[in-house]
Amino acid sequence: MAKTLTAGVFSSFKVNEKSAHPAYRQLYQELRASILSGRLPSGARLPATRVLADDLGVSRNTILSAFTLLIDEGYVVSKVGAGSFVAHQIPEDNQIPRRGHASDAASGEAAWPLADHELSQRGRALARMSFSSGPSNPAAFTPDVPAYDAFPLDLWGKIISKAWRNISSDVLGYVDPAGYWPLRVAIARHVRAGRMVDCKPEQVIVTSGSQQSFDLLARLLLDPGDAVWIEEPGYLGSRAAMLAAGARVVPVPVDAEGLNVAEGIRIESSPRMVVVSPSRQYPLGMTLSPDRREQLLELSKSTRAWIIEDDYDSEYRYSGQPLPAIQSMDKQGRVIYLGTFSKSLLPAFRLGYLIVPKFLLQGVSTAKAIMDRHPPILEQIALQEFMEKGYFASHIRRMRHLYAERKNTLVTTLRSLLPPEVPVIDAASGMHIVVMLPNGADDMLLSRLLSDNGVIARPLSPYYLTEEVKSGLLLGFAAVPPAGLVAASKRFANIVTEYLSSENLIEPAELTEVATQ
Amino acid sequence: MAKTLTAGVFSSFKVNEKSAHPAYRQLYQELRASILSGRLPSGARLPATRVLADDLGVSRNTILSAFTLLIDEGYVVSKVGAGSFVAHQIPEDNQIPRRGHASDAASGEAAWPLADHELSQRGRALARMSFSSGPSNPAAFTPDVPAYDAFPLDLWGKIISKAWRNISSDVLGYVDPAGYWPLRVAIARHVRAGRMVDCKPEQVIVTSGSQQSFDLLARLLLDPGDAVWIEEPGYLGSRAAMLAAGARVVPVPVDAEGLNVAEGIRIESSPRMVVVSPSRQYPLGMTLSPDRREQLLELSKSTRAWIIEDDYDSEYRYSGQPLPAIQSMDKQGRVIYLGTFSKSLLPAFRLGYLIVPKFLLQGVSTAKAIMDRHPPILEQIALQEFMEKGYFASHIRRMRHLYAERKNTLVTTLRSLLPPEVPVIDAASGMHIVVMLPNGADDMLLSRLLSDNGVIARPLSPYYLTEEVKSGLLLGFAAVPPAGLVAASKRFANIVTEYLSSENLIEPAELTEVATQ
Repeated sequence: MAKTLTAGVFSSFKVNEKSAHPAYRQLYQELRASILSGRLPSGARLPATRVLADDLGVSRNTILSAFTLLIDEGYVVSKVGAGSFVAHQIPEDNQIPRRGHASDAASGEAAWPLADHELSQRGRALARMSFSSGPSNPAAFTPDVPAYDAFPLDLWGKIISKAWRNISSDVLGYVDPAGYWPLRVAIARHVRAGRMVDCKPEQVIVTSGSQQSFDLLARLLLDPGDAVWIEEPGYLGSRAAMLAAGARVVPVPVDAEGLNVAEGIRIESSPRMVVVSPSRQYPLGMTLSPDRREQLLELSKSTRAWIIEDDYDSEYRYSGQPLPAIQSMDKQGRVIYLGTFSKSLLPAFRLGYLIVPKFLLQGVSTAKAIMDRHPPILEQIALQEFMEKGYFASHIRRMRHLYAERKNTLVTTLRSLLPPEVPVIDAASGMHIVVMLPNGADDMLLSRLLSDNGVIARPLSPYYLTEEVKSGLLLGFAAVPPAGLVAASKRFANIVTEYLSSENLIEPAELTEVATQ
Repeated sequence: MAKTLTAGVFSSFKVNEKSAHPAYRQLYQELRASILSGRLPSGARLPATRVLADDLGVSRNTILSAFTLLIDEGYVVSKVGAGSFVAHQIPEDNQIPRRGHASDAASGEAAWPLADHELSQRGRALARMSFSSGPSNPAAFTPDVPAYDAFPLDLWGKIISKAWRNISSDVLGYVDPAGYWPLRVAIARHVRAGRMVDCKPEQVIVTSGSQQSFDLLARLLLDPGDAVWIEEPGYLGSRAAMLAAGARVVPVPVDAEGLNVAEGIRIESSPRMVVVSPSRQYPLGMTLSPDRREQLLELSKSTRAWIIEDDYDSEYRYSGQPLPAIQSMDKQGRVIYLGTFSKSLLPAFRLGYLIVPKFLLQGVSTAKAIMDRHPPILEQIALQEFMEKGYFASHIRRMRHLYAERKNTLVTTLRSLLPPEVPVIDAASGMHIVVMLPNGADDMLLSRLLSDNGVIARPLSPYYLTEEVKSGLLLGFAAVPPAGLVAASKRFANIVTEYLSSENLIEPAELTEVATQ
């Protein structure tokens, strides 16, 4: 039987009359934060809306609107005749659930209710942190996916065929958990040349992508309760892995120079680990300044904190010179460098890598072996060939030009269509830009409106953990050719300006202007 | 600076004069057990041999012999001028370390010493539980690997080439963490037909092999300290995953009927999980009897214990009819069925699966997504095609005949060569047999002797966790053609009989007899 929460749980909630957000939205945010933090446990029954309305001194409509939003987004499940319950699977990245068999089954009778004692405490935390995989066929503006249309599928097909034809029997069984040796050599060469990373091939560990890299490091280096700095806003995959390991995540704000190290020290002076995206902050896109890099290394020197350098798409830089990896400046062996082929090639290959200090090699290989022994061999051999023959470097070069063109098209088009209250932040690197929204704009609602009209624009607010949320939309530009970006930009601008205008966040005149174009 | 242990740590140790084992061997076993249990922490410095000899009242030679054995096996590292230390990576499965870059790097200067505070407490436990991947090129009698020489490599090559040629762009990005839907349908059909498993395709979760399946279940279903029954002796991979999750593993002895449930209840009456290999006990090979299956289901009904049914190589049965999976008898949704393609096809593909009750589907997919998102897509598509077209079923049939022939050759040859004190246990299924050794025979020493002579025979004793260890050798028969098995059998019989005879465990006459054949 699910536990029913008393209205007392929410008694600390007060409507802020000065807020730009309406009351229902404030209540929604309070409840969502309580669910994400685990204060409202999954499976718990929410109080009846009448009871809650009386208790909080707000209208029942306010409660209903907040609940409806939570139900729409999957944080709460409503069961006819039984009330509303905190969902077992929380859509942390707030993507639109995929249609398919998994969700059919999950919404089926058998999937509900999952009594709390079925999973372990750790398991419930894990299940609560779910993130969905997003739409499988990229549309404008799916972020985080490369240009499938420009990937050399035929060439890759030839390489895997040849690799399999020549496969030697000593790699058909269980192989080195640290990865296929020639691939480790090729990766070491790549990061040394491209990112000034200081490493030998034996320091390279091939993983099944960044998500596994984060999960592995969290388990190997953290104990439950250990403090981990994460960027605010920051990447959801690393946050989920840290939370799954029982770490205490400490959101540290980013500013124009990236992670604000001084502010972080003020909040938590002795983190056990810092997860940072220095080449290109995820999701906002700034570069971590040289000063901040020095400060981070100083911190790690004095506290022995691990620095996890997430260099997820450093390959694509459109202006200026990239700074060398922090790893290259580290004299203490405290920086672990994390790379992936999901952005530079395709997510489907599930290949990434870690560059670790030598003394961690044994521990990391062992953890990898216990987690899943080793990545499949064929992709490793094929990738090595792809790198060795120069195809990788030339693919990166081609994509850099292609993405620069797509990005410029998108930025120029959007700037011509959007009012000045909606600034389009250009990107010096990476695969998405951010469109900022005026204070008070509900980016999650807007994202759903856009999605209903066939435009994918991921909301910025879920990347924040604290209340200091900025409203915006992430627009990926890599996956779709310019014509598609332009067409979608028009629909995007219309919907955004119409929404902002209806909320009195921009002048109605501006809407008319856009609509008549 | 490493902690130095005082001799007092070992003061409880007394040489047992009645033991069949010499004093050095007893001390070695005591130290090894203390290291494996973590009582002697990794990196700790052992007392000087003179000090220890005085303290324990044994000769310094006894101490030296015990230390030498521990160093040979990788439990202890000796550093010139600094003393002997408990190793950071413990070779739990006692395989011969592979030569290669990983171990070169690990033995290099930078790899030593790893101060204890570098890893988290959980990380140290993980690193300590290492298992190596074994020799990469299977020789007689590498266990746990299929016949690479009989795998249809050309056919598989054609299938992957075609799968890649026809690949659709909606699977090039991030896909369903539960696996490729058509493959889930094919697996459901396979286990329904072959193992009477009661499931729908949505209950199938594709994993990166059994090791990941165990790791995933341990993290999702167990909290640190939870009791887990494991078989004694039992599979090292599942044991490592349970220990890595902080579980309290409870070794429960097996007898002719498999896992002794009544004995288990006596030791720990309310386990949170039971890990069992009912079709073919690993490593001894018996089938779990129908009575015991009933008892297990009763236990799980009354205690809500999860039953993890490890059906790792049920495909290969040479005599009698297989019993249906326990999962098929479960009315409570407490049995999770675990399958792998590492034995039926090749380990290199890194594909396995879980069949879970419907209410666990969301939790398991979420855990999988946080661990590594999903397995690579190409192998999944290729395997689906391989199953769909009937190639899988015919490959299994072919291998069953081939393995039966190889097994019969090996059993017959060994029985003709070995004395009656060394019984050869025939197998009704699977890919290895067990040769039992007389009490007092040191199977680890013998395994090393054999390995020095080019014969792989994995010792039985490391599969035990308690002191009730049986001595024996596991001989794989699947990977090598009959002629190779016969040749290796002769060397094997010579070395074994010579060793046993020199230890006075068999009559010397028998040695002569073998030697003159």
